[in-house]
Amino acid sequence: MANENDGFKFEQRHGKARVRVARVWRNPDGRQSVVEWSVSISLFSDCQNAYFRDDNSDIVATDTMKNTVYVKAKECKGQLSAEDFAIQLAKHFTSFYRQVYAAIVKIVEKPWERVHVDGQPHNHGFKLGSERHTTEVIVEKSGLLKLTSGVEGLALLKTTKSGFEGFIRDKYTALPETQERILATEVTASWRYSYESVSSIPQKPLYFTERYLDVKKVLVDTFLGPPKEGVYSPSVQSTLYQMAKAALNRFPDISSVQLKMPNLHFLPVNLSSKDSSIVKFEDDVYLPTDEPHGSIEASLTRFWAKL
Amino acid sequence: MANENDGFKFEQRHGKARVRVARVWRNPDGRQSVVEWSVSISLFSDCQNAYFRDDNSDIVATDTMKNTVYVKAKECKGQLSAEDFAIQLAKHFTSFYRQVYAAIVKIVEKPWERVHVDGQPHNHGFKLGSERHTTEVIVEKSGLLKLTSGVEGLALLKTTKSGFEGFIRDKYTALPETQERILATEVTASWRYSYESVSSIPQKPLYFTERYLDVKKVLVDTFLGPPKEGVYSPSVQSTLYQMAKAALNRFPDISSVQLKMPNLHFLPVNLSSKDSSIVKFEDDVYLPTDEPHGSIEASLTRFWAKL
Amino acid sequence: MANENDGFKFEQRHGKARVRVARVWRNPDGRQSVVEWSVSISLFSDCQNAYFRDDNSDIVATDTMKNTVYVKAKECKGQLSAEDFAIQLAKHFTSFYRQVYAAIVKIVEKPWERVHVDGQPHNHGFKLGSERHTTEVIVEKSGLLKLTSGVEGLALLKTTKSGFEGFIRDKYTALPETQERILATEVTASWRYSYESVSSIPQKPLYFTERYLDVKKVLVDTFLGPPKEGVYSPSVQSTLYQMAKAALNRFPDISSVQLKMPNLHFLPVNLSSKDSSIVKFEDDVYLPTDEPHGSIEASLTRFWAKL
Amino acid sequence: MANENDGFKFEQRHGKARVRVARVWRNPDGRQSVVEWSVSISLFSDCQNAYFRDDNSDIVATDTMKNTVYVKAKECKGQLSAEDFAIQLAKHFTSFYRQVYAAIVKIVEKPWERVHVDGQPHNHGFKLGSERHTTEVIVEKSGLLKLTSGVEGLALLKTTKSGFEGFIRDKYTALPETQERILATEVTASWRYSYESVSSIPQKPLYFTERYLDVKKVLVDTFLGPPKEGVYSPSVQSTLYQMAKAALNRFPDISSVQLKMPNLHFLPVNLSSKDSSIVKFEDDVYLPTDEPHGSIEASLTRFWAKL
Repeated sequence: MANENDGFKFEQRHGKARVRVARVWRNPDGRQSVVEWSVSISLFSDCQNAYFRDDNSDIVATDTMKNTVYVKAKECKGQLSAEDFAIQLAKHFTSFYRQVYAAIVKIVEKPWERVHVDGQPHNHGFKLGSERHTTEVIVEKSGLLKLTSGVEGLALLKTTKSGFEGFIRDKYTALPETQERILATEVTASWRYSYESVSSIPQKPLYFTERYLDVKKVLVDTFLGPPKEGVYSPSVQSTLYQMAKAALNRFPDISSVQLKMPNLHFLPVNLSSKDSSIVKFEDDVYLPTDEPHGSIEASLTRFWAKL
Repeated sequence: MANENDGFKFEQRHGKARVRVARVWRNPDGRQSVVEWSVSISLFSDCQNAYFRDDNSDIVATDTMKNTVYVKAKECKGQLSAEDFAIQLAKHFTSFYRQVYAAIVKIVEKPWERVHVDGQPHNHGFKLGSERHTTEVIVEKSGLLKLTSGVEGLALLKTTKSGFEGFIRDKYTALPETQERILATEVTASWRYSYESVSSIPQKPLYFTERYLDVKKVLVDTFLGPPKEGVYSPSVQSTLYQMAKAALNRFPDISSVQLKMPNLHFLPVNLSSKDSSIVKFEDDVYLPTDEPHGSIEASLTRFWAKL
Repeated sequence: MANENDGFKFEQRHGKARVRVARVWRNPDGRQSVVEWSVSISLFSDCQNAYFRDDNSDIVATDTMKNTVYVKAKECKGQLSAEDFAIQLAKHFTSFYRQVYAAIVKIVEKPWERVHVDGQPHNHGFKLGSERHTTEVIVEKSGLLKLTSGVEGLALLKTTKSGFEGFIRDKYTALPETQERILATEVTASWRYSYESVSSIPQKPLYFTERYLDVKKVLVDTFLGPPKEGVYSPSVQSTLYQMAKAALNRFPDISSVQLKMPNLHFLPVNLSSKDSSIVKFEDDVYLPTDEPHGSIEASLTRFWAKL
Repeated sequence: MANENDGFKFEQRHGKARVRVARVWRNPDGRQSVVEWSVSISLFSDCQNAYFRDDNSDIVATDTMKNTVYVKAKECKGQLSAEDFAIQLAKHFTSFYRQVYAAIVKIVEKPWERVHVDGQPHNHGFKLGSERHTTEVIVEKSGLLKLTSGVEGLALLKTTKSGFEGFIRDKYTALPETQERILATEVTASWRYSYESVSSIPQKPLYFTERYLDVKKVLVDTFLGPPKEGVYSPSVQSTLYQMAKAALNRFPDISSVQLKMPNLHFLPVNLSSKDSSIVKFEDDVYLPTDEPHGSIEASLTRFWAKL
């Protein structure tokens, strides 16, 4: 929603970012659970007077938003998904404050994973894993919902079954064609659920946590292919598309998938001095690089889905 | 531009990110100049067959994009702005390749600043400064242009003339009102120029570099106020709005300004044990924090501007 | 070894840091292995003339060191530990160059872990894990060896069975005593092996890789205690000591262990406004923090060990 | 000081790291000053019982150390150097606690620089600069002092007057000799002052702050040479030595200087396809890299200095 002032159009939002909270739940049988979330809140609200007229009377202080995260975390009597917590928070801000017409809540969950000691799950011991579960929800005053989940930091690599051939060759082209290279990427994925109001989401408290694990498995399995033979990747583009399609085909309540898959190059090492070869590449020694990297991204959406 | 396949809508782009290049220009009189850019390219092109049919024949390899950065840097016979370089690159991709209908080029410039030794500018010596000049250009095949410049990492602080009062108080509110606090932020700004085609931009090679310095000065001066008295800030919101308005009022070829100004809190230090006070705050000792932080962002746009 | 020049004592070393290399080994049966190492080399050599007299004739160029990493990686016909590779490199520099009297080689291994698809190990598919295996070797011309291995980034947390009581209370003390808190840390460990010459190390190519996994398991298991009951930690200090002792008691060829265990505080959340309590802590809601953090470090050494 | 337990030698220290504090001083004439420090404290104390016998009665809680930083910051009635503040803190811990026989205090100062508006210094406005002032002090119970100051993040570059020739050539060498290259580094310097007891340091409150600026200027000026002609660098080694020597020769109360100067390579860009050259380097286009980098470090010490 844009405003006018001084002959300008004006749009604004304010919030609190990187609010960290951990919540522990303790079962009578000794088993304990923990989540650690970094929460970012952004409110769309009628508070232009703070900008135009030095009048803060319509401002929800960002310190108050922070406090609310802790109040709401306390109210969670049992373990729940980051998605459900984000929805509860967003719903609170849009319903509690007359000024707030929409709220965005983003959460990044730290991957604390229960440790297994000699095969047995530990009752209260955890170790930090690698990739992170993310979510972003937008809730409007009416209850309208956009719910997106994702993963970030999911680094994958395969040592073979990857090539790149037949691309455009011109006077700027030096890259040789190949049928054998390392394919490595750090997947950032997000998928939109088709639930369009806060009242329509599934009631199971860990529904979206399980979905997260399931979608991640489909993405990894499609990237790598079967454990024995793998699957040939003719380009990052093709592999990305197969991954997005597999997720949509498998999960009916997901309406679109967005994937960012930087191509983290493992360059063949060939070295020579003026006179002689120092190292000759034979699909054995690679130089891994972070920059520059290819950047391939795409989104795939069901036709019936609203955007 | 979306495509259809397998019953899905599909959108994609690919490019090369973090291509680093430095360019040196050497004057016959001994004075030398240098720029260091990190360039990211993203192409919108008709290459769906790579995704759908494992056919790479319409793909501009990202390695080729990287090479092009170096070719084009070499062609710059005199020093030029990051904006002009970005436009030249984007124009190249959209005109050289039939498949490419639009290109986004982003550049972050490393702040190498000429050193002055006892007041004299050094002919070839540089030191890294702090905040960074950024630009993002979008060029379409037709020559249509969106040109945005910006600054990131511009950290500012004032030790007084800042307060926050009269905001909403409710059962989640703990923040006291104050007329005396430290105000600190790390400004990320971007401003859109009104030039709408590659042929309409000013011909002076360092036009946008100077604009960058001028806009930055207006932002800093408005944030801080006059050197003797400063200016009272009743909220980050109000200060942000004044900064955006000042930039638009001053530079007629800027059509909109976007500002992100996290509120980097310097908390008053009050410490007590069960029995007694350890430190009592008297506008003297603060605890600076990075997280959580307030996040205030807004954009201000001239009415006649296209979005 | 210190030199004299211009009336000063002088010590120096030079090398190449962050040399990244990946090595793939391909079994005829389809199973492939990969390691990715970041190698840092530092040479102690008689090359003072480069510093004092602008004479580079005794300098091993750091570019040459980099090339050597690739040559030596290629020579590894089967998978080997980071420790063994570091020793081979260090031995090379001290024996190949008359000027080099000692070499330090450090390696950080990226935790690429073989993916299991539905219980089956993938032949060529890997995913990045979290904590990293490190090693540092010092080899002298004589063959004398100091061999240290370690782990970094091993973040552990337990939700109970931790307290801190009975510490010094004075006028600067505000911390309440507790028998119930979250204990979280990011372990950086290094352990010295007792092998004192390059000729005395075990010949099994993955000996030190297995040791790494075994030591890590002992550290984690001691930190957490048995899976059902756990073990009470009266302080980070006590837990650290138990971990170091367990490692030394278990592995006879380890002569000392150093542990750095920052105390990553999870603060109890208690919030109140002037009038009333907003959140009252009941061992449920915590504020995780990165700074400040306690820093506890110690080393434990067998008596017979040389330092 | 090592202890014995369970047949092991044992060494330990504990402290609090990353304690952030800002201190504002307000002059009656309106001019205000601010410093922001990140303080890390490490205590050597007789508290082995905490490790060996779960007895915390000799432990200074790290939370208490944090509080002390704020108390001592409050006690600073006028602006003082990071060095002086570190000494006061370290002195406090060794004198206040019978158990503490030595304390290390490290400080990194955030480079808040007073803004000048149209040539006039702002009374209370600051902007973050780039390189950081650091200090590390060790104080023993007896009052014995080791005082070190430094700079980190000082990135310097010169576009000419640098070469590298005459180094060892062997079968691993590919680097061409050159008399014309970019020289870039990020200097980390530390220098030890000759004051050996807390009672002997200069009484001027900003003495070490001014020294910091002066040493930095000598390092930069020596790296770059005179503004017109510069100075030829035959190697990083030679330049580093000149810088260290200049600092020692200029400042009589500095007894040693340590410099770490990674060689941040700017690689000549030469590109060719199978058939033809794409870019041919003519001292114009460079590829800046962060990894790998050369690592050159050395220390220079007066003969009469204790180590």
